[in-house]
Amino acid sequence: MTDRPLVLVDAWPRSKEMIFTAETEARLRDLADVVEHYDGRMPDAEVEKHLDRVEIIVGQTPMDAARLARAPRLRAIVNVKGNWEPVIDYAEAHRRGVEVLSIAPVMAPAVAEFCVGAAIALGRGLLRNDRLFHEGSERYGIRGNGDAVSLYGSDVGFVGYGNLGRALRPLLAPFAAKVAVHDPWLPAGYLAAEGCRAASLDEVLAGSRHLFVLAGVHADNEGFLDREKLARIRPDACVVLASRAEVTDFPAFVELAEAGRFRAAIDVFPVEPVPADDPIRRTRNILLSSHLAGGMRDSYARIAEILIDEIPQILAGLPPIRLQRAEPRLASAQRSR
Amino acid sequence: MTDRPLVLVDAWPRSKEMIFTAETEARLRDLADVVEHYDGRMPDAEVEKHLDRVEIIVGQTPMDAARLARAPRLRAIVNVKGNWEPVIDYAEAHRRGVEVLSIAPVMAPAVAEFCVGAAIALGRGLLRNDRLFHEGSERYGIRGNGDAVSLYGSDVGFVGYGNLGRALRPLLAPFAAKVAVHDPWLPAGYLAAEGCRAASLDEVLAGSRHLFVLAGVHADNEGFLDREKLARIRPDACVVLASRAEVTDFPAFVELAEAGRFRAAIDVFPVEPVPADDPIRRTRNILLSSHLAGGMRDSYARIAEILIDEIPQILAGLPPIRLQRAEPRLASAQRSR
Amino acid sequence: MTDRPLVLVDAWPRSKEMIFTAETEARLRDLADVVEHYDGRMPDAEVEKHLDRVEIIVGQTPMDAARLARAPRLRAIVNVKGNWEPVIDYAEAHRRGVEVLSIAPVMAPAVAEFCVGAAIALGRGLLRNDRLFHEGSERYGIRGNGDAVSLYGSDVGFVGYGNLGRALRPLLAPFAAKVAVHDPWLPAGYLAAEGCRAASLDEVLAGSRHLFVLAGVHADNEGFLDREKLARIRPDACVVLASRAEVTDFPAFVELAEAGRFRAAIDVFPVEPVPADDPIRRTRNILLSSHLAGGMRDSYARIAEILIDEIPQILAGLPPIRLQRAEPRLASAQRSR
Amino acid sequence: MTDRPLVLVDAWPRSKEMIFTAETEARLRDLADVVEHYDGRMPDAEVEKHLDRVEIIVGQTPMDAARLARAPRLRAIVNVKGNWEPVIDYAEAHRRGVEVLSIAPVMAPAVAEFCVGAAIALGRGLLRNDRLFHEGSERYGIRGNGDAVSLYGSDVGFVGYGNLGRALRPLLAPFAAKVAVHDPWLPAGYLAAEGCRAASLDEVLAGSRHLFVLAGVHADNEGFLDREKLARIRPDACVVLASRAEVTDFPAFVELAEAGRFRAAIDVFPVEPVPADDPIRRTRNILLSSHLAGGMRDSYARIAEILIDEIPQILAGLPPIRLQRAEPRLASAQRSR
Repeated sequence: MTDRPLVLVDAWPRSKEMIFTAETEARLRDLADVVEHYDGRMPDAEVEKHLDRVEIIVGQTPMDAARLARAPRLRAIVNVKGNWEPVIDYAEAHRRGVEVLSIAPVMAPAVAEFCVGAAIALGRGLLRNDRLFHEGSERYGIRGNGDAVSLYGSDVGFVGYGNLGRALRPLLAPFAAKVAVHDPWLPAGYLAAEGCRAASLDEVLAGSRHLFVLAGVHADNEGFLDREKLARIRPDACVVLASRAEVTDFPAFVELAEAGRFRAAIDVFPVEPVPADDPIRRTRNILLSSHLAGGMRDSYARIAEILIDEIPQILAGLPPIRLQRAEPRLASAQRSR
Repeated sequence: MTDRPLVLVDAWPRSKEMIFTAETEARLRDLADVVEHYDGRMPDAEVEKHLDRVEIIVGQTPMDAARLARAPRLRAIVNVKGNWEPVIDYAEAHRRGVEVLSIAPVMAPAVAEFCVGAAIALGRGLLRNDRLFHEGSERYGIRGNGDAVSLYGSDVGFVGYGNLGRALRPLLAPFAAKVAVHDPWLPAGYLAAEGCRAASLDEVLAGSRHLFVLAGVHADNEGFLDREKLARIRPDACVVLASRAEVTDFPAFVELAEAGRFRAAIDVFPVEPVPADDPIRRTRNILLSSHLAGGMRDSYARIAEILIDEIPQILAGLPPIRLQRAEPRLASAQRSR
Repeated sequence: MTDRPLVLVDAWPRSKEMIFTAETEARLRDLADVVEHYDGRMPDAEVEKHLDRVEIIVGQTPMDAARLARAPRLRAIVNVKGNWEPVIDYAEAHRRGVEVLSIAPVMAPAVAEFCVGAAIALGRGLLRNDRLFHEGSERYGIRGNGDAVSLYGSDVGFVGYGNLGRALRPLLAPFAAKVAVHDPWLPAGYLAAEGCRAASLDEVLAGSRHLFVLAGVHADNEGFLDREKLARIRPDACVVLASRAEVTDFPAFVELAEAGRFRAAIDVFPVEPVPADDPIRRTRNILLSSHLAGGMRDSYARIAEILIDEIPQILAGLPPIRLQRAEPRLASAQRSR
Repeated sequence: MTDRPLVLVDAWPRSKEMIFTAETEARLRDLADVVEHYDGRMPDAEVEKHLDRVEIIVGQTPMDAARLARAPRLRAIVNVKGNWEPVIDYAEAHRRGVEVLSIAPVMAPAVAEFCVGAAIALGRGLLRNDRLFHEGSERYGIRGNGDAVSLYGSDVGFVGYGNLGRALRPLLAPFAAKVAVHDPWLPAGYLAAEGCRAASLDEVLAGSRHLFVLAGVHADNEGFLDREKLARIRPDACVVLASRAEVTDFPAFVELAEAGRFRAAIDVFPVEPVPADDPIRRTRNILLSSHLAGGMRDSYARIAEILIDEIPQILAGLPPIRLQRAEPRLASAQRSR
């Protein structure tokens, strides 16, 4: 028998290496007893064994109301994957004062860096020029830069301003870009305080030279960037699709981009892996990236850092700081993949 | 006869469109009589006709000591090309109080943006992943990001800290990158005030995860990044060659980069255009850009803006503000192309 | 009968002018029916009449568990005063999904500006020099600046890093000040991400040339800056007491400051108004300010702005953005005045 | 006989302690032979003895054309006082390629800090409230803040944008102040690039809630802020006079400020020390500072740092970096005190 707190780690599909370093694991074990399971969901019997003592669950262990009732010391469930799975009774957890938290914000900087790199690659023609050079038909200087556009002083648009938008905004500041944001869930005063101008979707689509699609997908916004909306995008805009393919009419998006209606980079797809014979593989004009924007080594290092920063906090009964709270209503509404 | 000042525009190889907008030209003509010549150097006879009245020359009209003596009202020669041509007697101009100025700083932001885009493209594997995707062998998420590196918190190195370095530094600030600079012409205290750490060339080469070659070429630094120095570059560094090919042993640079010793993007070449049969066209691992980093529309718009900002300044006998002065000693030492 | 939402405004001791402008009130009335009461707490009978319909309460109307049960449509209680009054059953509100929110963050910028002004006034001797000048005994230049200290590059310490610290931090950034923070409720990684170094209380007291006391008062930290702690303050430090007098042994603080042990500015007092015969009025060496740091016109303008920014948000079932959530445990622990 | 360069230090009225630390002096002596004289101007005979060898003069040793001709190895004259004395033949030095340099920029940060402190002290009423508190008539919170104004989002005006303006601008950035500048010597495009709006003098006077007088005095601008101009200052503006009293009609400035027409802080006076019976000593409403804004310990530490940073630079034939060049025309025009 022990008075030490118990932390249950059930982080699948994250591996141990993705969420702990040797050092942060050692610090955790100083603070708490740790029960862990990787390479699949922790078996129910194992979970049940620890419910009476568990204070923190790392991972999205199914926790319905009944199970929450059997976990009287539970303080927090820490989602280390990003999307909210529908396996937790968010409302009941909230009622019981169990924090449901996510490391989602830590993935955002890597995505923001990808967005900047992709936007410059599109605007400055890095891939096309590289190809022309290898083919022997490159042109030099101003003659090769006919349609090049720059982030400096650009009219930039964000569709959605959550973790990704907040991480991307400061990267654009030294370019003195003007950022218009469409996010129906955010008030204009807040966006102004963030250095952005609140705008309608049509304004953002029609007015942006660099356009970043950063919105999550929810029950009620699936496919809202339909063909008719996509047709409003400013000709020759540079469009980076970085959050979820499902917010677009994806075939229309690919068709318009391949036809040169706008320049595009895509990191997310309706089905992943993309089928071998998917026609997108035969496009010539789209910068393709296989969901590589967020999930890099640095992002996982940040998960390890934030977990060991906040777990002691939670065990001491203090509120989370950088871990993001699930909004009960929103977490339930969000579509998981 | 008139008391209006005379401005002589002899801007070749810049075209009129590169240095004036309709609006800025109109403003200039309000201030001064303008004699202009494009599509080649202004004929000597034409130049001579205006020497007695000319107050500003825009362009690098040959001005030896004798000609300077025949231009008693000359206040400034404004180089709109960037490199210092050896056609001006810099020391005599200085003695006579004739400012020899350059628009060089205005090209730097576009180059800095290119550097950021290329660094992210290399570090995050944008081109390689795009190619793998089109080939059908892409990998997703962390599995596809095995060697991806990020600018966030990166150890960044600059070789040279002139206009390019000063333009690039603020773009890296929101990434919280640590910037070490090797520039033998700049003191450590100044670099510290710029948010950089002064370092030896070897430190910068061996320690930088992202390395930017930004040094101009001068009589005494040609090829200083020789094979032995290049061999010190940190394995898997991302190297952007953005200033002048001549500062490197260029064949060695290409060989090492193609061999995967480091990742590289190259915007400048020993001979431009690159010969059709140059083996560099057959490389697979280098991001090639045909001197596109600086010379884009936005850069020329900045030239137009700065000229009309500063010409009235100069005509009023005031010092230049953003136009850069030739250092008599340095201008003479700089190798032109 | 109506389907319009009802907002109950019971904002005492705030007046109408403090929380609405004509424009923001008009926008509110477009959105909702408004029942309001100023110049005292709203009578119970009036409150009860609206419980069945009320969706938002602006003010700290007493809401115990029974009342909360009688307000089934209540979404949020918005505290416009700052401190958490013990008149609300925070835990029950949380269980019911009623947000208890505060405008506290909007007062912070004015306090942060006061802190900078007071720190410079102390460090550069503005008041003393003004007095010497009027007395005719001023000294000029370096001779008058014997003990002047500057924020540039200074070792700055914060005791507490909540709303005030977060507002003050960016104001110190252009001074390149190094900021150490003692806040037992915050983890080191978070503070590092904010550009601060986590430090023990002793380190902050002994090491800071400019010291800002920004901690709120809670059941367990009253008087923690006792005489023994205050004695560790670096000689000739500039200390600004801006949050709550109760975190200090106030008589000891005054005694040490008046004795010249350190320089001090005080904006908050154990009893306000300070009694007419309080010996603090006879001090010569302390900069006194009568709780003026936060409550200025600009702060109230921000309240009006944030209320009209977020009320539509809350009525639409969306989470608050800039309004601050009460932590149930912390709100209960916080001592009100 | 020696090949070592010779540096002549003739820095009066600066003392040795003001321009060197033990460490920087040791570093200088490693590089060069040093001849020094303090407590008065170096005797002519001593100066003459070293002219044939001297490479750098630190201080404003009289150097007319004849003496310059006798100093064939002289590279630079480094003014460590700030104002340009009329004892040097600036035009001849320029013709000979002798740099005439100044440490003026290093004094600017301390002045900028003073400006921020004084502006907040005025806007927030720090001195008046302190006096009221000691007198027992203080008022609390919003009731005491009737006319308090804040730098946040303020309309700020600068009269003059030289070293002082450039140092002050970034300190105002986190307040999101809007800065309008009147400087007849600077073009609008440059000011825009600095984050300022170029404006007429009348606009700046009439439109600024916080007004900073930062202009140097020259032959043609003495007293340009005359009574008629001062009368245009926005009622209740906060005015900081930080550069030179001579740019104003000083008696009118004092009279208007004392009468409450605007709030004012003054650091510079027509005659210093101010006479014992000067009526300014009997003012009640002006914040007086006896030329303390720039000359503090930190400023002198910066002189020591910049000298040892740049002297090796100059001895190596490289251009100065942070030392400021005298403009031959401007240096001659500037009135010394």
